[in-house]
Amino acid sequence: MSGRLVVLGGGAAGMSAASAARRVDPALEIVVLETSGYAAAGLCGLPYHLAGLVARPDDLLAYPPAYFRDHRGLDLRLHAEAVGLDVERRIVRYRGVDGAAELGFSSLIVAAGGFPAAVPLPGVGDRPCFTVRTLEDTVALRALVETGGVSRALVVGAGYIGLETAEALHARGVRVTVAERVDRVLPTTVDRPVAGIVEEHVRAHVELCLGTDAGMLLAERAPDVVVVCAGVRPSAGLAVAAGARTGPGGALLTDDRMRTNLPGVWAAGDCIAPHHRVLGAPAFVPLGPTANKTGRVAGTVAAGGDARFAGVIGTAVVKVFDLEVARTGLTLTEARDAGLAARATDVVSRSRAKYYPGVAPVHVRLVHEAGGRLLGAQLVGTEGAAKRVDVVAAALHAGLSVDDLADLDLSYAPPYAPVYDPVLLAAQAAQRDRVPA
Amino acid sequence: MSGRLVVLGGGAAGMSAASAARRVDPALEIVVLETSGYAAAGLCGLPYHLAGLVARPDDLLAYPPAYFRDHRGLDLRLHAEAVGLDVERRIVRYRGVDGAAELGFSSLIVAAGGFPAAVPLPGVGDRPCFTVRTLEDTVALRALVETGGVSRALVVGAGYIGLETAEALHARGVRVTVAERVDRVLPTTVDRPVAGIVEEHVRAHVELCLGTDAGMLLAERAPDVVVVCAGVRPSAGLAVAAGARTGPGGALLTDDRMRTNLPGVWAAGDCIAPHHRVLGAPAFVPLGPTANKTGRVAGTVAAGGDARFAGVIGTAVVKVFDLEVARTGLTLTEARDAGLAARATDVVSRSRAKYYPGVAPVHVRLVHEAGGRLLGAQLVGTEGAAKRVDVVAAALHAGLSVDDLADLDLSYAPPYAPVYDPVLLAAQAAQRDRVPA
Repeated sequence: MSGRLVVLGGGAAGMSAASAARRVDPALEIVVLETSGYAAAGLCGLPYHLAGLVARPDDLLAYPPAYFRDHRGLDLRLHAEAVGLDVERRIVRYRGVDGAAELGFSSLIVAAGGFPAAVPLPGVGDRPCFTVRTLEDTVALRALVETGGVSRALVVGAGYIGLETAEALHARGVRVTVAERVDRVLPTTVDRPVAGIVEEHVRAHVELCLGTDAGMLLAERAPDVVVVCAGVRPSAGLAVAAGARTGPGGALLTDDRMRTNLPGVWAAGDCIAPHHRVLGAPAFVPLGPTANKTGRVAGTVAAGGDARFAGVIGTAVVKVFDLEVARTGLTLTEARDAGLAARATDVVSRSRAKYYPGVAPVHVRLVHEAGGRLLGAQLVGTEGAAKRVDVVAAALHAGLSVDDLADLDLSYAPPYAPVYDPVLLAAQAAQRDRVPA
Repeated sequence: MSGRLVVLGGGAAGMSAASAARRVDPALEIVVLETSGYAAAGLCGLPYHLAGLVARPDDLLAYPPAYFRDHRGLDLRLHAEAVGLDVERRIVRYRGVDGAAELGFSSLIVAAGGFPAAVPLPGVGDRPCFTVRTLEDTVALRALVETGGVSRALVVGAGYIGLETAEALHARGVRVTVAERVDRVLPTTVDRPVAGIVEEHVRAHVELCLGTDAGMLLAERAPDVVVVCAGVRPSAGLAVAAGARTGPGGALLTDDRMRTNLPGVWAAGDCIAPHHRVLGAPAFVPLGPTANKTGRVAGTVAAGGDARFAGVIGTAVVKVFDLEVARTGLTLTEARDAGLAARATDVVSRSRAKYYPGVAPVHVRLVHEAGGRLLGAQLVGTEGAAKRVDVVAAALHAGLSVDDLADLDLSYAPPYAPVYDPVLLAAQAAQRDRVPA
């Protein structure tokens, strides 16, 4: 078909979309407008750059900009911020390095990502204030830390980015206080009993103030720097102003080919609310793998190919100091909020055979429903939790029941699992703990 | 119903069966006859006892014998070897510590396990010769090693027990030669290209002689000890003599409730060939998890309860020095032997994000069929391979296709996976490499 495809956003979703579109149509003109000075930056790696585990900002790029330009024939424009969208006339207005400009398109992919939620911080004064959402911001924070001028930091928010950031600053020798408005960590990630295990672990390393207004701590703790990690909001403004429909969290709604309700406009990545297979409804869960996959589908379809996005299951994992915290499907809270007669079953199993050196506890929570329907899982442990959750993710994708889960033929050798894998033990416990149908 | 249940074999299957029967029927008399001096010994842990990683033989027991007797009300008779079976009269003859005896039964579970395959070793002379199949044998071998009298060992067989044993002896400072009759390691576990990766790794630690007759090496290497790890055969003799039907490898055939064709006789564990879900036929794959599960089903049903065994998928994992080697479903060889138009797709991915410290290669081989049917997987790596195979095991259990596998929502964080998990990358490669339908 050819013409011009414009992609708003050069992150994981935008660059996946542009690359997929190029594979479908070698003749298509493809322009990517990216606000920051980096494209295809792995945002999930930002805390590890801050910690010093990843030496250079460029290490976080999937490919350098020149690769996209020279090898994929993409017109990648950095420092180019879209500021207006006229869907009827198919025109994008943006501010680039050479000033304001207009760009016509035959098709458009909105992959503008997310932006950090703001937190009112009266009294923050002229203290340096950062987020860990862009590479630029993280590079600046790291530079400040490396000057030695940061001995005390306040991290606002105990979601997964807040906890990763606390760990990174702690690794740099900074005294860290984490302030979370609600009375638990990882409030949107795991249920309260699982959060309790994480809290105990966090407190062994940094100060954790739950149910606390961050502003109140500013005077008391006198931090040299404030890092706001209070969640992400979808960058959907331009599309919404042009008439795009939104769902949970104000994120854009699409069909399974990533089409918005606007003609010629697709959307992908952190600015959308894709279909959640367990919930049976759209959900806003901005994560890297979904950005990559939905970007690829949007680019393929926008360029005239065919692809579909199967939806998300709600899988996520985070490293919190030495703890692996993983989840998939629905938490008990999410299930009950969705009106399901759900129950949670908790077991403490082991990462290895009980006699094998290095064996550690693995906590498994299964969430299930009347009739034995499997709804979700949460796993926590110093080893053996992170990727073990994927077994349940696969089971949820396939619609397996708790009984099916207990029947799985999972790998066993003493260094890697007990003879009944923790997932199997949890499924057996859930069978005994069945919700009356 | 009550009466007397006799269980032949006090291993994982037999003790699982006896314990399950007790839960169903508190009044049932349950007698377990075990040939060795140990019950519920974790045979998979034997190489780690030999290596010195597991201090005491008793550490390998699920529970001590007194626990089964006192807390589960089981009449557990050690050093009791069944020698005759009269199914019509429902009588077992055995040799116990007090001599020969008879025992009537209302129901019988054959859980006699397996025995090591013999290898003709002309010229072995009076060299000490061991297997790593019973706790007694392993304890004796360890004692010999600890006397310091073993400087050179010949391990016969490069299956997973052979390689685990080689590693254990190497850890004890013994110079080890592994002799394998066929021209590759792990001949029944993985395909040749995957075996090649393992071979290179093994050769970095011990001498490996493939396509070699072990007898030939006896004179050349002059080992102080020979350890035969040439596979396992089902201990099905008594049941076969009584008319039990057998399948692959001479193992007993049962239905999904573990019933044999003999009235009142069930079977479980390493002496049976259970249903293989991917093969759609019985298969002899004697492994710990299957022994535990089939034992539980046999005991439950024999005691009057209801349970079914869902079948095996062919999942297994082995640690070979620092390498994790995992498989599930069918290898390409197995698939082709079964007459399937199969193809294998290999990818080399990573255990973590490319920029995260400690990242290591993960080799994934997917076996698939015309039309995108998923048949199996093999994974190898120094980390991230062992339990990752379980995702594919779950997918195979659910009958997911290669396309479905590529759609899974798997966990991502830089310390644990690339943004496209190795399993997803392999599925994408298999999609491109599809067998024409």
